[in-house]
Amino acid sequence: MKKVVLAYSGGLDTTFCALHLTKDLGYEVHAVLINTGGFSSEELSETEKRADSLGISSFTILDVTKTYYQEVIKYLVFGNVLKNQTYPLSVSAERILQAKTLADYAKKIGAKCVAHGSTGAGNDQVRFDMIFQTIIPDIEIITPIRDLQLSREAEIDYLKKHGISMNFEKAAYSINKGIWGTSVGGKETLTSSQTLPDSAWPTQVTKEKAEEISLIFETGELIGVNDTLFDNPVEAILKVNELAAPFGIGRDIHVGDTIIGIKGRVGFEAAAPLIIIKSHQLLEKHTLTKWQTFWKNQLAEFYGNHLHEGHYLDPVMRNLEAFLADTQTFVTGKVKVMLHPFRFQVIGIESEHDLMASKFGSYGEMNKGYTAQDVKGFTKILGNQTAIFHQVNKPDHEN
Amino acid sequence: MKKVVLAYSGGLDTTFCALHLTKDLGYEVHAVLINTGGFSSEELSETEKRADSLGISSFTILDVTKTYYQEVIKYLVFGNVLKNQTYPLSVSAERILQAKTLADYAKKIGAKCVAHGSTGAGNDQVRFDMIFQTIIPDIEIITPIRDLQLSREAEIDYLKKHGISMNFEKAAYSINKGIWGTSVGGKETLTSSQTLPDSAWPTQVTKEKAEEISLIFETGELIGVNDTLFDNPVEAILKVNELAAPFGIGRDIHVGDTIIGIKGRVGFEAAAPLIIIKSHQLLEKHTLTKWQTFWKNQLAEFYGNHLHEGHYLDPVMRNLEAFLADTQTFVTGKVKVMLHPFRFQVIGIESEHDLMASKFGSYGEMNKGYTAQDVKGFTKILGNQTAIFHQVNKPDHEN
Amino acid sequence: MKKVVLAYSGGLDTTFCALHLTKDLGYEVHAVLINTGGFSSEELSETEKRADSLGISSFTILDVTKTYYQEVIKYLVFGNVLKNQTYPLSVSAERILQAKTLADYAKKIGAKCVAHGSTGAGNDQVRFDMIFQTIIPDIEIITPIRDLQLSREAEIDYLKKHGISMNFEKAAYSINKGIWGTSVGGKETLTSSQTLPDSAWPTQVTKEKAEEISLIFETGELIGVNDTLFDNPVEAILKVNELAAPFGIGRDIHVGDTIIGIKGRVGFEAAAPLIIIKSHQLLEKHTLTKWQTFWKNQLAEFYGNHLHEGHYLDPVMRNLEAFLADTQTFVTGKVKVMLHPFRFQVIGIESEHDLMASKFGSYGEMNKGYTAQDVKGFTKILGNQTAIFHQVNKPDHEN
Amino acid sequence: MKKVVLAYSGGLDTTFCALHLTKDLGYEVHAVLINTGGFSSEELSETEKRADSLGISSFTILDVTKTYYQEVIKYLVFGNVLKNQTYPLSVSAERILQAKTLADYAKKIGAKCVAHGSTGAGNDQVRFDMIFQTIIPDIEIITPIRDLQLSREAEIDYLKKHGISMNFEKAAYSINKGIWGTSVGGKETLTSSQTLPDSAWPTQVTKEKAEEISLIFETGELIGVNDTLFDNPVEAILKVNELAAPFGIGRDIHVGDTIIGIKGRVGFEAAAPLIIIKSHQLLEKHTLTKWQTFWKNQLAEFYGNHLHEGHYLDPVMRNLEAFLADTQTFVTGKVKVMLHPFRFQVIGIESEHDLMASKFGSYGEMNKGYTAQDVKGFTKILGNQTAIFHQVNKPDHEN
Repeated sequence: MKKVVLAYSGGLDTTFCALHLTKDLGYEVHAVLINTGGFSSEELSETEKRADSLGISSFTILDVTKTYYQEVIKYLVFGNVLKNQTYPLSVSAERILQAKTLADYAKKIGAKCVAHGSTGAGNDQVRFDMIFQTIIPDIEIITPIRDLQLSREAEIDYLKKHGISMNFEKAAYSINKGIWGTSVGGKETLTSSQTLPDSAWPTQVTKEKAEEISLIFETGELIGVNDTLFDNPVEAILKVNELAAPFGIGRDIHVGDTIIGIKGRVGFEAAAPLIIIKSHQLLEKHTLTKWQTFWKNQLAEFYGNHLHEGHYLDPVMRNLEAFLADTQTFVTGKVKVMLHPFRFQVIGIESEHDLMASKFGSYGEMNKGYTAQDVKGFTKILGNQTAIFHQVNKPDHEN
Repeated sequence: MKKVVLAYSGGLDTTFCALHLTKDLGYEVHAVLINTGGFSSEELSETEKRADSLGISSFTILDVTKTYYQEVIKYLVFGNVLKNQTYPLSVSAERILQAKTLADYAKKIGAKCVAHGSTGAGNDQVRFDMIFQTIIPDIEIITPIRDLQLSREAEIDYLKKHGISMNFEKAAYSINKGIWGTSVGGKETLTSSQTLPDSAWPTQVTKEKAEEISLIFETGELIGVNDTLFDNPVEAILKVNELAAPFGIGRDIHVGDTIIGIKGRVGFEAAAPLIIIKSHQLLEKHTLTKWQTFWKNQLAEFYGNHLHEGHYLDPVMRNLEAFLADTQTFVTGKVKVMLHPFRFQVIGIESEHDLMASKFGSYGEMNKGYTAQDVKGFTKILGNQTAIFHQVNKPDHEN
Repeated sequence: MKKVVLAYSGGLDTTFCALHLTKDLGYEVHAVLINTGGFSSEELSETEKRADSLGISSFTILDVTKTYYQEVIKYLVFGNVLKNQTYPLSVSAERILQAKTLADYAKKIGAKCVAHGSTGAGNDQVRFDMIFQTIIPDIEIITPIRDLQLSREAEIDYLKKHGISMNFEKAAYSINKGIWGTSVGGKETLTSSQTLPDSAWPTQVTKEKAEEISLIFETGELIGVNDTLFDNPVEAILKVNELAAPFGIGRDIHVGDTIIGIKGRVGFEAAAPLIIIKSHQLLEKHTLTKWQTFWKNQLAEFYGNHLHEGHYLDPVMRNLEAFLADTQTFVTGKVKVMLHPFRFQVIGIESEHDLMASKFGSYGEMNKGYTAQDVKGFTKILGNQTAIFHQVNKPDHEN
Repeated sequence: MKKVVLAYSGGLDTTFCALHLTKDLGYEVHAVLINTGGFSSEELSETEKRADSLGISSFTILDVTKTYYQEVIKYLVFGNVLKNQTYPLSVSAERILQAKTLADYAKKIGAKCVAHGSTGAGNDQVRFDMIFQTIIPDIEIITPIRDLQLSREAEIDYLKKHGISMNFEKAAYSINKGIWGTSVGGKETLTSSQTLPDSAWPTQVTKEKAEEISLIFETGELIGVNDTLFDNPVEAILKVNELAAPFGIGRDIHVGDTIIGIKGRVGFEAAAPLIIIKSHQLLEKHTLTKWQTFWKNQLAEFYGNHLHEGHYLDPVMRNLEAFLADTQTFVTGKVKVMLHPFRFQVIGIESEHDLMASKFGSYGEMNKGYTAQDVKGFTKILGNQTAIFHQVNKPDHEN
């Protein structure tokens, strides 16, 4: 019997795959749930129970949250990466790590195949396949949902027929949870004009009174929240989420280009990622030079896009990470943030690396360290080429 | 007596200049107030009255709001320009047009000098001087505040001594109003950690109940709001502001690099610019291709920075505008926006140029127009180089 | 009988296709040779004769050289496009126009299919298919060489068996000729270390004595050579080639990334393109501002790559063309070039738009229009942020 | 008596400074010649002799060639930096290191002033001042030539009057020598149209017969030439120059934007830099992925420009260096180069990191590792968005 390692989340698609691979195709199925910080222990034990009912050969849970942070999230923070200025790449990022982890597991247990539950219309299929063909080129990739071109209804029918019990209601939306955010797709997000109903968002709003928190960064990494320093940034992220999610902060809808050329639209809730990124960015505005900011923005946009499109193993990604990491040397300090229902404000920062120190001059008020005469000379030379251009060419623009 | 044309706003600095140039230096002062959409008729008539009390030779009001839109704002919308992802360049943009208008006026009346009230510690001095030295290189530039290195207190003392009546309280903050936003600088904005008090924001919040509005764009320009089409985008911008400002939308604090190398921080309120840019950007997410978006983002960031730094007359700006304008051919449609106190959501769009039309496939659900086999081939080739790289080099990364 | 329009060049691959489609598959074959400036009239009449021997239904020659210039080459000159700093995209560029022309012809004669002779290992297959699927999505694409995965030897055997006479010797290299250069691939270019033998280059070297020529540009387009102005830049390009090719100028080997992920290597000879681009670039160094040059370089590199990869119909290409064209307003003047065997030097320029006019100062010798004091002020402010950064952070770098 | 450290090269300008500072201004002058690889021991001892005749307090020679390589040249090679696609930044680069070295020396000996001989019309004044004001902000900068706005003739007169003997003929051109090239400015280079006469180039052409050499790179650094491995890349660079310079290779004229806004033009001879950069670049074409190449090009252009403009100490430069260094991991191999009089060809490479290995397919001939069907699927999806765009919008372009 051929061993197959299945990327298993406990959702509709992967439950179908587990059953189909076992029952219909006769594989020895080893289901692996790779937790990137999105599952509670209750959810995990419930998922384990259901997995056991599917007749598979083994079920394994691998928690990779800290590796996920180290290899991916860290750089998304360094780069303030929000795809299309909106989306923290909640899902895109974790697929990478799930694929890598699954590939390693397949090698370890000597499987001849790996399987994932992606449809033929999304990004995940490309992300999984690209990682697999790169690091386990000799292992076959099986994708039942994509190959059979199944609809959600057809999958539900199949599972019911085989007596699998599941909350099929909840399956109206495709939900994906990880430490870097929860995505919610379906119904309204398949249109261009409608937004998700309140009930579809993962977190219930329970806080109404504004609350100020502070985030502590060291060389670009979140290491503390309020008065607590944490051993690992993962704990700090979870803390920010615990404080902010009950405000309903971080909900939005992402619209963008899928890897396969169609436009895609998906809801997401990501309180901690948005607060962390905007806080980190504010700290950078005070501590980086102009051209550091310019190039970080340009490169981080590409980094985010390339990651989104599954190119994580292109060596240019390592080169860009080297750049991003190197910019963080002095991104150390505290950021104050005010939380309100459905929104937050980044208030201000404290940092010993703040380049706004008043001894160098107060913007708009008083110059220090240089004279009026210096600025006049500066301006004369700074505009010298443009002035020459206009003298030589007399473009009609200003006539 | 030497004719000088003074850029006059009616604020503390330019009132000082008018008096100083007339009384102390004996110039024939022609004060020109260049309105970029920030002054009400009451404010204008009040300013005129005060101007008359200063002993100057003439006072002229020039309304350039429509030109301002045509030559600058339009491209800021095309480029979704928010400096440092935050600030719509409310002030930076209007200085350009004020300087150009003043230069033309000086040429028209045969003045030998122009004067502006900039301090030696801000961006405006560079913006004014760069425009002047380029298009009126033979006209002398006079900058009393910068040259005398005067503090606000010293200016107030001087005006009081000369019996000028003015609301000196208000002068605690330096306020600048134009159609593309109001900036508020002083006290808290001179620190890195404090935000402005409620009283310092220009608009009183009077609306509490959420309100949905729709914005209508044609080839990238705002031409209608709700059911009304306007003759000129300027009117549409004013309409959005009228609807949204009472929610307290669009307030934030900008931190960034000044032209002169120090960091600057300033508060601003810009309801219409933020709503228009975010709506326009959403429409673009549905109507532009991936690489149009990528390059627009990269170029618009530079365009915004270069404008901010006073390089408006560098011919590269015209080239970038040609690019931006050319991307707008199909950016036509309607955007729904929900207004809430202190925040807004862009909800969705309708456009006949929407590339998300479902006949090409539904993201994450069902592929149309291509097969599972096509995607497999696509992925194989797309990742071909990275796979070859890993086979050749076996970087330890994935071992 | 099903009508198929075949992109026919008279070479080995397309001769095979013509015969195979007619004889084996029973199509009504309409062969179209699309001349992009690479064929002499003798070659055309010889090719026509052979075509007639293949039993096809029609043979048509379309000369698109001028359109090719207008729609593609012009922008390659504006952008000084040399892929990987070496290759003028001789072949990449003409495929685009050939595909577009063929698609239009197929629509015109009501064909149900188009065919091309690309292998499965090159770029051309992607370029042809991408244009076809975009503008004639309902017309079937047939690619016999790719589908049968034929080697050159197999094709030769087939043609010999059918009694087709052809210079099979010459077929050792795959040669492609157009006005923007001739490419030569095969044998040595399939290795990483060998160069082409003298005999493989298309032009015989017959000139030895250095010769000075001058190129006249108007708004970026070549309009004259030496003392002759031409009606169409195409004629000027041919003139430059006539003068320079006999020197053996413009030979090189291009190595780069193919669209399909493998590395590709190909020889080319392109005297006129290289001389024109380097001359145009020198003229730009004198007439553009610093940031025009910077952004032209960045965008032109992408433009060249995207064109190379077959994305000509992505609307971003039109946007980039708008940018490039807008930069050419003052790129007018004369460039002197010295031709030597196997090399050329661009000597200097004359232009009324030259920004190097000495009245603004002589580099390194004497400043005019500004003072030593101006430069000191300039430098102080220009380096202000970096100086602040070093005072604040004391990076160990300079200790 | 006030101690001043003078950047001394032995040329006209700095000889003037030494005398003027000592005799006219009464400084205690400590002249430092900072050798960046351009001086032979004969030249050094001759310069020392002349220095002794000027009445200065001390004369010191510091050889910083190896540091120069480590801190600057290395990255210029990694980035294949040729300003405006032409100039290896021969002079720009060494000024940085000279300024840093001088600043350290001034601190060491407790000098209150530093002096350099820059005119007010070039780039060097800005480079020196920017480094000094950043790392020795409390030390005064003295620039006699700039302040007195002296012409070369005036300087010569002054020196003659003081009985200083020097080859004043040679002073017709301003020459600057370092390991990364020799620049030659004056007379013809002050025009836009003339080139330097043969006699003005530093190296006499003595080789005529073509010669093949090979360059050995390890992680991007030149470590060997032909069969010899060197301890330090500096020795390898000198070896390449020894072999190639007698061919007259690497002569050209650079035209570009000076920091102060005027255009500048200067001749240079740089055989080794050009051969090394072009060889390194060829090796990269075989060993880097597409996007590594793209971003290296974009960033290296900025890196070169920013260095050229004296911004070496902006921390973004360290970030960019981190990126560039990280791209070099697999840039290891041998490059064959053919030297001819006045030109060279890069022939080919050998590398175990070559991504062109034929087992992955032969460009244009035979696909391996993927099928015709794969490429069809690839192309369909790759062009999907453009095809959708054209279906939705029917731009008139292709009608």
